[in-house]
Amino acid sequence: MTPPKLTRAALERHLPILTWTKTYGRDTLTSDLVAAVIVTIMLIPQSLAYALLAGLPAEMGLYASILPLVAYAIFGTSRVLAVGPVAVVSLMTAAAVGNMALQGTAEYAAAAITLAFLSGLILVVMGLFRLGFLANFLSHPVIAGFITASGILIATSQLKHIFGVEAEGHNLIELVSSLVSHLGQTNIITMIIGVATVAFLFWVRKGLKPLLMSAGLKPRMADIVAKAGPVAAVAVTTIAVWLFNLGERGVKIVGEVPTGLPPLTMPSWDLDMWGTLFVSALLISVIGFVESVSVAQTLAAKRRQRIVPDQELVGLGASNIAAAISGGYPVTGGFARSVVNFDAGAETPAAGAFTAVGIALAALLLTPLLFFLPKATLAATIIVAVLSLVDFSILKKTWGYSRVDFTAVAATILLTLGFGVEVGVSAGVMLSIGLFLYKTSRPHVAEVGLVPGTQHFRNINRHEVETRPSLVTLRIDENLYFANARFLEDYVTDRVICDEPITDVVLMCSAVNEIDMSALESLEAVMHRLSDMGIRLHLSEVKGPVMDRLKRSHFLDELTGEVFLSQFDAWAALGNPPAREAS
Amino acid sequence: MTPPKLTRAALERHLPILTWTKTYGRDTLTSDLVAAVIVTIMLIPQSLAYALLAGLPAEMGLYASILPLVAYAIFGTSRVLAVGPVAVVSLMTAAAVGNMALQGTAEYAAAAITLAFLSGLILVVMGLFRLGFLANFLSHPVIAGFITASGILIATSQLKHIFGVEAEGHNLIELVSSLVSHLGQTNIITMIIGVATVAFLFWVRKGLKPLLMSAGLKPRMADIVAKAGPVAAVAVTTIAVWLFNLGERGVKIVGEVPTGLPPLTMPSWDLDMWGTLFVSALLISVIGFVESVSVAQTLAAKRRQRIVPDQELVGLGASNIAAAISGGYPVTGGFARSVVNFDAGAETPAAGAFTAVGIALAALLLTPLLFFLPKATLAATIIVAVLSLVDFSILKKTWGYSRVDFTAVAATILLTLGFGVEVGVSAGVMLSIGLFLYKTSRPHVAEVGLVPGTQHFRNINRHEVETRPSLVTLRIDENLYFANARFLEDYVTDRVICDEPITDVVLMCSAVNEIDMSALESLEAVMHRLSDMGIRLHLSEVKGPVMDRLKRSHFLDELTGEVFLSQFDAWAALGNPPAREAS
Repeated sequence: MTPPKLTRAALERHLPILTWTKTYGRDTLTSDLVAAVIVTIMLIPQSLAYALLAGLPAEMGLYASILPLVAYAIFGTSRVLAVGPVAVVSLMTAAAVGNMALQGTAEYAAAAITLAFLSGLILVVMGLFRLGFLANFLSHPVIAGFITASGILIATSQLKHIFGVEAEGHNLIELVSSLVSHLGQTNIITMIIGVATVAFLFWVRKGLKPLLMSAGLKPRMADIVAKAGPVAAVAVTTIAVWLFNLGERGVKIVGEVPTGLPPLTMPSWDLDMWGTLFVSALLISVIGFVESVSVAQTLAAKRRQRIVPDQELVGLGASNIAAAISGGYPVTGGFARSVVNFDAGAETPAAGAFTAVGIALAALLLTPLLFFLPKATLAATIIVAVLSLVDFSILKKTWGYSRVDFTAVAATILLTLGFGVEVGVSAGVMLSIGLFLYKTSRPHVAEVGLVPGTQHFRNINRHEVETRPSLVTLRIDENLYFANARFLEDYVTDRVICDEPITDVVLMCSAVNEIDMSALESLEAVMHRLSDMGIRLHLSEVKGPVMDRLKRSHFLDELTGEVFLSQFDAWAALGNPPAREAS
Repeated sequence: MTPPKLTRAALERHLPILTWTKTYGRDTLTSDLVAAVIVTIMLIPQSLAYALLAGLPAEMGLYASILPLVAYAIFGTSRVLAVGPVAVVSLMTAAAVGNMALQGTAEYAAAAITLAFLSGLILVVMGLFRLGFLANFLSHPVIAGFITASGILIATSQLKHIFGVEAEGHNLIELVSSLVSHLGQTNIITMIIGVATVAFLFWVRKGLKPLLMSAGLKPRMADIVAKAGPVAAVAVTTIAVWLFNLGERGVKIVGEVPTGLPPLTMPSWDLDMWGTLFVSALLISVIGFVESVSVAQTLAAKRRQRIVPDQELVGLGASNIAAAISGGYPVTGGFARSVVNFDAGAETPAAGAFTAVGIALAALLLTPLLFFLPKATLAATIIVAVLSLVDFSILKKTWGYSRVDFTAVAATILLTLGFGVEVGVSAGVMLSIGLFLYKTSRPHVAEVGLVPGTQHFRNINRHEVETRPSLVTLRIDENLYFANARFLEDYVTDRVICDEPITDVVLMCSAVNEIDMSALESLEAVMHRLSDMGIRLHLSEVKGPVMDRLKRSHFLDELTGEVFLSQFDAWAALGNPPAREAS
């Protein structure tokens, strides 16, 4: 059953921009412009930093923050989602492209562009063919574990910039050992800049807001001003490097960033490269979509607005294709920036388009100023941003709630840290599915008896109930399908095989929403085996849709017993079993 | 919940032979001996033929029919399962080993031995760690489709022997095109032998039994005599080739078969080879186990005997390891032979051990007689045997019953025919799992209302029921888990977002057997979003185990509404909603 559809024209469904532009007015424009200014200030240092994290030139971070935002404004359904480079996707880009080319080469950048294109293509196809359900295979605990482990990996990967040393690695062990072996070459000035920036940014997060509020700012305004912390850090450290000529004393700087609007680029059409990048692109698409749609839905609900997940796929896909043709790399909706956009009062996706204009102006005018920007500053902004992603409480929550979920999240964290993002998230998905199938493959089956004086049937092991030696009633608390069909066969056969007086077995199906072909054949096998032992098989409380389907098979014609509407009917009818010969 | 355990000693559980030997007597011995003679007569031509199918020398078929049978008699739990080479596993062996070495080489045979060892190891490990549930991932329709397609592939692959030409291929297209391109080289005498044998064997199947019965034999005896048809064909065609010296006129013959008991062999310890063969060994293990345990259970139920699936894994694993150390190749329980064994009156696994003695005698005494046996005769026995596996009725059955199952079976058949056994069965498994997750990811959700004058709630779209504008009740007919958590979020949010008077949403959970962490977080998200809209979320009819788990989380503390024991309680309590301000 699909959710109720709104009756808009197909065109508006595929181009959400047609909806909100109809009522666009001066007030909306003002709100959107204010939000755009604030998000732009936040996005400039972030886009440079995440490009660094992805192993790409700084300008590609800016390019990824221009056209993709415009594309999302046209195709996306969220009013406030702020699209652009984000930490986790940048790390995944580095992991995917790092297998194919060396950082700093033209091949590396070309592969990142192709990755964005592929990822966009996958998202658009998923949207048009309504394959958004594929994202469901990522369970919440797996995502939470993956994000936490990614945060740790990202922060660790940035420590080299803080110490001003070389270090490489795609997992925690490689990163840490590479870092430790190079610590002797630490550049003291770089380290001072890096550590001071980290400390400053943490203070901005925790200490600045109270200070601003005591100076008379309103809480919301204080919040927004605090978001400008990274810009201040960028400005101060850049000026320091320029003033004291620190670049010549070993402080790594961003260097020349080309001035101008994004170039027109094309993805590679090399099918071998597509093959190599496909799985990475799929993972990036799905992770990006899941993270993005979740924040979009949460923010939309606050204003009783509606998100269309399949159209969101198209919107994010269009953004990534836009990134690929304008020198960018994979993007998605960012959590922190979207919340800022929402809090700053953005009312329509136009705010995103205005942000794009802001970043374009930065690319045109500000890039010469970035020459002396130390990489340590960017690394510090990344570290402070991603440490807020690290949250081990999911381990405690799942431990208390469900060991299966705990296993999935613990494995995802360990595998991501130990073997990198792609192994971690793939293993998490497979483990979630495997554990779910395992769980449902051994369903809860209760043997039930009549609660005296009522028409209710309860577990014989938990309640004082009436039973009869000739009658076994099994309540199956699970859908019957291939993964538990054999279990049912074994269970029923085992229950009756050594118990001579039994003449009737009733399967109580009140919690069975589905009987697939495998389970149907297992039921047939059980029926024939019971029949060989002189036992009849009955069903009770079969749900309507399940019964409709059973009627389309031959099972009911061959059934040795009956189908009872209620378990009490079965109890009453089988109360005086006909005299039968032993088989 | 595990099935009730019998209280036998652990030793007897792991060595079932200790159980049945305790009561072994003269009557049992006679029955077992008779069955063993009949199965031996059936097994001699089959073991030679299946070795040919696997691309192995004929004697390896005999070797695979000696020690493995003894091993199963010690470790297996079925009284009547006839272990040995079977058609589908032989084809899978050819597919797996054919990637690694050329047929006829020592490497090819060594790889087959290693495959048997690996497969045995996998089965034993699955048995000891109770991983038999892994076999559940093969749904019945996928197996049925796979067996049908394999039968077609096998029969087609044997046509080259009937025509006496060379042809190769691992899928139907390769096989047919290779065959057609070589048809010009058909050896007429070979073809006459082959076609005549096929015709004779079909007649034996269909026409001989009525003839024998009209000659006064009892039906069961007539059946058993008819099983000797292949032996007669082998004898007659071998004598014909010898008499008329047909070997020199291009009829391919088996040639020299070494005389003697099986040699002691060892698998390769090359870990690279293990890596290459692992997936094939896993597929062979699982397919072999599933086919074998199913026939074992069906036959056991007819005599009220019990099969222990986990111990069956150990039994089949021991058989394969035995095959590996005695010059054999992968084996499993054969369907047709087991039924013959059962019908012939086998009472204990000793019948299998006696069959092993029979085959050992054949290997010692009869191999010189096999020199002139034409390969066309063996191919004919294979073709006639496997065509009984081909059964397209599963397509019709699933089409009527469930399109999801139909899709899985159709894809398995097409992919097996088009890309070979390994691709076919792997794709079938993945498709079954994917389709199941897809199905449960879009669960049936019904909006329900009160049937007037009762306490029952029914779907508002199907029944005349009472509803209230302020109250929405959704009955969820599925477990809530990661694959449908997002669906639930979307569904509930969509339902209420444009419907202003709603103040209360009740989720009716009578068919929900499980709420995993993802679904719990989705419920929390839904609750918060509803709360932002001024709507309370309630639950009703939550099952005991689900409630126990919810109590271990914070969800119930934060729940904006209540948990009602019955839906009617919810209806009554929410009948006069308190005056609320719009949000």
